[in-house]
Amino acid sequence: MASDPDDDPRIGDISEGTVLRAILARTSTASHAILGPGDDAAVISAPSASVVATTDTLVDGPDFRAAWSSGYDLGWKAAAVNLADVAAMGATPTALLVALAVPRDARLSFVSAMADGFREACDALAPGCAVVGGDLTVSELLMIAVTALGDLGGRRSVTRAGARPGDIVALAGELGAAAAGLETLFGRFRDGETPIAVDADALDDTARQGLERQLRPRPPVRLGVVAADAGATAMMDVSDGLALDAGRMADASGVTIDFSGAAIDELAFAGDRARALAGGEDHGLLAVFPADAPLPEGFRALGSVTARGADGVLLDGAPIAHTGWDPYRDWDGVVG
Amino acid sequence: MASDPDDDPRIGDISEGTVLRAILARTSTASHAILGPGDDAAVISAPSASVVATTDTLVDGPDFRAAWSSGYDLGWKAAAVNLADVAAMGATPTALLVALAVPRDARLSFVSAMADGFREACDALAPGCAVVGGDLTVSELLMIAVTALGDLGGRRSVTRAGARPGDIVALAGELGAAAAGLETLFGRFRDGETPIAVDADALDDTARQGLERQLRPRPPVRLGVVAADAGATAMMDVSDGLALDAGRMADASGVTIDFSGAAIDELAFAGDRARALAGGEDHGLLAVFPADAPLPEGFRALGSVTARGADGVLLDGAPIAHTGWDPYRDWDGVVG
Repeated sequence: MASDPDDDPRIGDISEGTVLRAILARTSTASHAILGPGDDAAVISAPSASVVATTDTLVDGPDFRAAWSSGYDLGWKAAAVNLADVAAMGATPTALLVALAVPRDARLSFVSAMADGFREACDALAPGCAVVGGDLTVSELLMIAVTALGDLGGRRSVTRAGARPGDIVALAGELGAAAAGLETLFGRFRDGETPIAVDADALDDTARQGLERQLRPRPPVRLGVVAADAGATAMMDVSDGLALDAGRMADASGVTIDFSGAAIDELAFAGDRARALAGGEDHGLLAVFPADAPLPEGFRALGSVTARGADGVLLDGAPIAHTGWDPYRDWDGVVG
Repeated sequence: MASDPDDDPRIGDISEGTVLRAILARTSTASHAILGPGDDAAVISAPSASVVATTDTLVDGPDFRAAWSSGYDLGWKAAAVNLADVAAMGATPTALLVALAVPRDARLSFVSAMADGFREACDALAPGCAVVGGDLTVSELLMIAVTALGDLGGRRSVTRAGARPGDIVALAGELGAAAAGLETLFGRFRDGETPIAVDADALDDTARQGLERQLRPRPPVRLGVVAADAGATAMMDVSDGLALDAGRMADASGVTIDFSGAAIDELAFAGDRARALAGGEDHGLLAVFPADAPLPEGFRALGSVTARGADGVLLDGAPIAHTGWDPYRDWDGVVG
């Protein structure tokens, strides 16, 4: 943004109204908005007479490091992870609400770039969806809490609980790319314990691609509705790792999910099966389909559903550890 | 809660699932929920084919101090301020989503008490509304971001922009009570700059009442729909102070709002007119009604709307300062 600091004030030195006007100037009009930002609340169209709603937060520390993510990256990621949750119900995202807590010394350009990230993620992943409201407060710690709304278009929502023995398990999206990017960040861009700025030019193509997916994930939001229309019996987005999330789906459905190692190898980022099973944050769509129907575009078969056994998740018929991401336990370990 | 610390683990020592189960066990079923917590997203009934949505955040520091507010208080207040925003559109709150960032060393009992506060605020202020979804993360700083959804029941939303010359300005709720409570906290319960635990028994009835309103506000949520049905031409909730918020309504409507000092004195908490004009956080409903209709129950006339003059807000025909709450500017001053 502005190179002259006088043109790029600190958030703590300007009024809330000034910040909000700068953000709103960078916000698209949501095609589903009946009343947009600026009043006590927004009003969003809900043509199906129901609304899908989900919330997810990015917090400096457990979810990102300011040295590694630009404002644009953070806006993009905060939008993308919430859009994926709406898609995973078989719905079309209609609107985002953004609660932003920003340190006093953050620059206006940082917040403006975040607004750009929100807008461009919506335009790329869920056209017609946009930020319709929000809240801004000062805080010692940067936090971005997003609520995404969606419409089912008359469909029934696709939950995690509908998988049946005999169904096919399939995935749209990536496996392990975002986790590879996180490994690159922790492995390459630290000075001791302190995160340092990313130099993407220092990376080979594979590492750079993983990094892009970690910072700006591209979940296949459009395919949520496609899966619902193809008769998906269960669906969820993979945020905490394939094995862990599939275990949740298996538990909710009362079934066992048996993955094919060969199928996972084909999709695994950089051919790393362990990371494909355990790595989080790709936000692909894990969906289960009836065996007698063709898989919809964008989905690849990963295994099959069987009657519930001792384990909820198997790999080529054998138990695997439910390794995955629990921020309460894993982050310190990752940080070292 | 539990007196034995072994029975009351720290959030950082238990899994996210354990925390979520404890919260959900204390959450009512929202009568408007089609699909409640536990999946990628919730599904909420939107019988009017539109949904009212708003978000508001409480952050440790600018919005509360942990020494002054219990978990229960924080849950109550986070619910109440968002319910008031939905009511101010003329809508009935249907559901809350709660994004919670909690320090690792917080006790499970603290989070459970917060869930109790959410539930009881909804039951008291907006029966049928409940928490339908959320997100939990660890953070160095406690933050509660709430999104409230509501249904208009076929009504048009009541914005800030509809006030017309000749209309009557009225208020349901309190004026200055929450600000009096904040003054009590800063004046009585600090050790130097450090907030210390509140001893309500040390206070007289008036101070205790102000404190209760600061910690557990009771906005007249039910009266939002009543005002809409009575033909309100504009409405908003008073979160940042009567003069400041009325100025926003006047600007949005292109009118001037002329308050009666005598009418404000009648409603002013403890008879303090200056605090009634400037004090925030009461979350009463400021509404404008046609002059020829009787005011609905619960509303008291505060003044009249005139053609736009040089000032958006007048007191007995004379300009007043738009004093009110801007967290970017005021908090440091209040903290001292």
